[in-house]
Amino acid sequence: MYDGLKGFRDFYPGEQSARRQVTDAIEDAAGRYGFREIATPALERTEMYVDKSGEEIVDELYAFEDKGGREVSLTPELTPTVARMVVAKGQELSKPIKWMSTRPFWRYEQVQQGRFREFYQTNIDIFGSSAPEADAEVLAVAADALTDLGLTADDFEFRVSHRDILGGLVRSLAADPETVDTEAAIRAVDKRAKVDDGEYFGLLSDAGLDRATAREFDDLITDVETVDDLDAVAEAGGADVEGAVENLRNVLAAADDLGAGEFCDVSLTTARGLDYYTGVVFECFDSTGEVSRSVFGGGRYDDLIESFDGQPTPAVGVAPGHAPLQLLCQRAGVWPEESLSTDYYVLSVGETRAKAAEIASGLRDLGHVVEGDVADRSFGAQLGYADSINAETVIVVGERDLANGEVTVKDMASGDETTAPVEEFPPESGRPTYEDYE
Amino acid sequence: MYDGLKGFRDFYPGEQSARRQVTDAIEDAAGRYGFREIATPALERTEMYVDKSGEEIVDELYAFEDKGGREVSLTPELTPTVARMVVAKGQELSKPIKWMSTRPFWRYEQVQQGRFREFYQTNIDIFGSSAPEADAEVLAVAADALTDLGLTADDFEFRVSHRDILGGLVRSLAADPETVDTEAAIRAVDKRAKVDDGEYFGLLSDAGLDRATAREFDDLITDVETVDDLDAVAEAGGADVEGAVENLRNVLAAADDLGAGEFCDVSLTTARGLDYYTGVVFECFDSTGEVSRSVFGGGRYDDLIESFDGQPTPAVGVAPGHAPLQLLCQRAGVWPEESLSTDYYVLSVGETRAKAAEIASGLRDLGHVVEGDVADRSFGAQLGYADSINAETVIVVGERDLANGEVTVKDMASGDETTAPVEEFPPESGRPTYEDYE
Repeated sequence: MYDGLKGFRDFYPGEQSARRQVTDAIEDAAGRYGFREIATPALERTEMYVDKSGEEIVDELYAFEDKGGREVSLTPELTPTVARMVVAKGQELSKPIKWMSTRPFWRYEQVQQGRFREFYQTNIDIFGSSAPEADAEVLAVAADALTDLGLTADDFEFRVSHRDILGGLVRSLAADPETVDTEAAIRAVDKRAKVDDGEYFGLLSDAGLDRATAREFDDLITDVETVDDLDAVAEAGGADVEGAVENLRNVLAAADDLGAGEFCDVSLTTARGLDYYTGVVFECFDSTGEVSRSVFGGGRYDDLIESFDGQPTPAVGVAPGHAPLQLLCQRAGVWPEESLSTDYYVLSVGETRAKAAEIASGLRDLGHVVEGDVADRSFGAQLGYADSINAETVIVVGERDLANGEVTVKDMASGDETTAPVEEFPPESGRPTYEDYE
Repeated sequence: MYDGLKGFRDFYPGEQSARRQVTDAIEDAAGRYGFREIATPALERTEMYVDKSGEEIVDELYAFEDKGGREVSLTPELTPTVARMVVAKGQELSKPIKWMSTRPFWRYEQVQQGRFREFYQTNIDIFGSSAPEADAEVLAVAADALTDLGLTADDFEFRVSHRDILGGLVRSLAADPETVDTEAAIRAVDKRAKVDDGEYFGLLSDAGLDRATAREFDDLITDVETVDDLDAVAEAGGADVEGAVENLRNVLAAADDLGAGEFCDVSLTTARGLDYYTGVVFECFDSTGEVSRSVFGGGRYDDLIESFDGQPTPAVGVAPGHAPLQLLCQRAGVWPEESLSTDYYVLSVGETRAKAAEIASGLRDLGHVVEGDVADRSFGAQLGYADSINAETVIVVGERDLANGEVTVKDMASGDETTAPVEEFPPESGRPTYEDYE
């Protein structure tokens, strides 16, 4: 009778159990690095996005006026909110601040494969460090999360770039550095793989690079395939670019120290779309190319906190989006099985409900997942239900068995069953199965 | 510079770690009964609430028109959404359906202690059973969750009532059952503790009960303090009430079988405000009365799925709200400590970053929470930070130690330190501490 909204998804238990495993893997990886969970509001003042996010995001806002006359928006991304939170606590927070959280965000955009209007991300950020080790840690957390999910270096790669290399090159190559729009040139690089050559060079031209310079710039950035190739770029770009190249090298070396080096490729054609990025930026891609769009990305945004009137606070982060990650995991065959699991079903037949409830409670006290009959159903219906929830063991509590001081322990995989003395069932610890009583 | 919105909260890591423990306790308790996690959208069509939720909820909706011209609302409660999901899958879902989920909801209401405009609930529901065991299981899950949190029978009580007892009494006592508005009378009972006598009896009068009948009705429901007291009610109410009394007794007996009996009190002055409730309803209260409002509630809503054009599907559920539960836990002194915990801090001094990173990675591979220096800081600053994150053990990786083939293992509680051979650190398993090397 009522439909859900386009681009908004209902997750039923099978799919949700797979999603939960993936979320847990990402959060556990971040947790091992000491990232701490925070929780944040779904609504913020619209002006925060108008001021701080790019135009693209503002066009897609779920914005409205609340009953108190405030202009509010469903949060389209987390970064402005965490920036607000860092500024609100100011000096109270010991640096570096390492936060993570998983939650939905909302953008009114075209719904397509792996892209929805309500989409889930785990945001992982470090505030208060400009050291390359911070960038490297963010890369290492992302790599650990993906390898924990079963993905390998054959499945994914982080294309790592540096905005100051791109910006520095643009300024040093331009005939007049004053007239070139560095941000626009970087946005052009971000669009490079998504538009045709004509449009790309048109965008570079709009940014203030003449045709020959644009070509030179593009040759320089596309020629870089390894760290060693950065020498040519440093040479062409002057002191600013040299510094950025060194920073990028240090980040990659630190990532290597943390075991994430094998997943990192230098790629100066990676730029990231959001305006607030500075320094190192990166995107995760499917190595086979089957998932064609970027799976997720991250990078430095050293100026954002200050732009919120906070103390200058360098920052770096990554935000795996769960829907594109699901596409990658499915392509690689490591998406968790979408099925339920149940340790026990306690089946009651005849006037044995009280005893069955007691046994179920006893098994739950041992920490197991236990279902019992809550619908007054027949033996066959209960057994069918036990099968539908993938119960490993069924405990049959029947009147005759109970009269003999026994319950039946049935292994659902084999169908084998045996009896156990009811006064000792369940035992005080452990996970009693057919094997224990056969 | 930017403020968060009134009634919307930012949760920083300390408080969030306590909230996470509480959420996990509730979800684990439900998980042991075989409730399966689902995930649901934050936006639904407004008409669903206008049609199905009470007027009170509709007045508080965050409703707006989206960019596609749809009238949408931030979800103020979960029940209509799960009803929609049950109907959407229809016969595909094996019954009983047992679902749970934790997430925020939104209502534009007056902000006060324990009540916010963005509030978190764990919804726990069973669809497809009218048996008393289903009601009892919902009570037992709630009781297990609260006792797992450390609350006892001295801390909380479930006041259990039955809408058909209340409705049946009203109809049997009324001079003319045709002219009495049963729903309005039940809403009056729900308001009983919140308004003065005059207003309460006025509401009963509006519902169609004359003064003497209203007094008789009120005497009957307030006289019930135990299960045995229900006899008088059954007698006064006729066949319908007798059936409802028997159902309530069966629910309480089944709750007793599951170990939840000690938390349940019969209380016919409990009614629940939402119109869609039928049958058994209950509310959880602080036994000491210090938290004065209902902590959370639940009950049967047997007609809702059918009203969504689904097959007739009885349902029962409970939805602990996290903010009022926090007040109860804090009153009882069982709210988890709001602090961070960290297994290791790996402190790097001098040119030892690569080795320190390797050791940190090794400890993380063992599953531990490990932080290292990501901000290029001094020995003292690193030790101060290690203290601020409550690191249990600090591994100092210094140049001199490394030259001797050692690292320093420092216990942060005692300040004691010793050395461990670096080629064996970390070991292949376990959780190495000062004691292992002293």
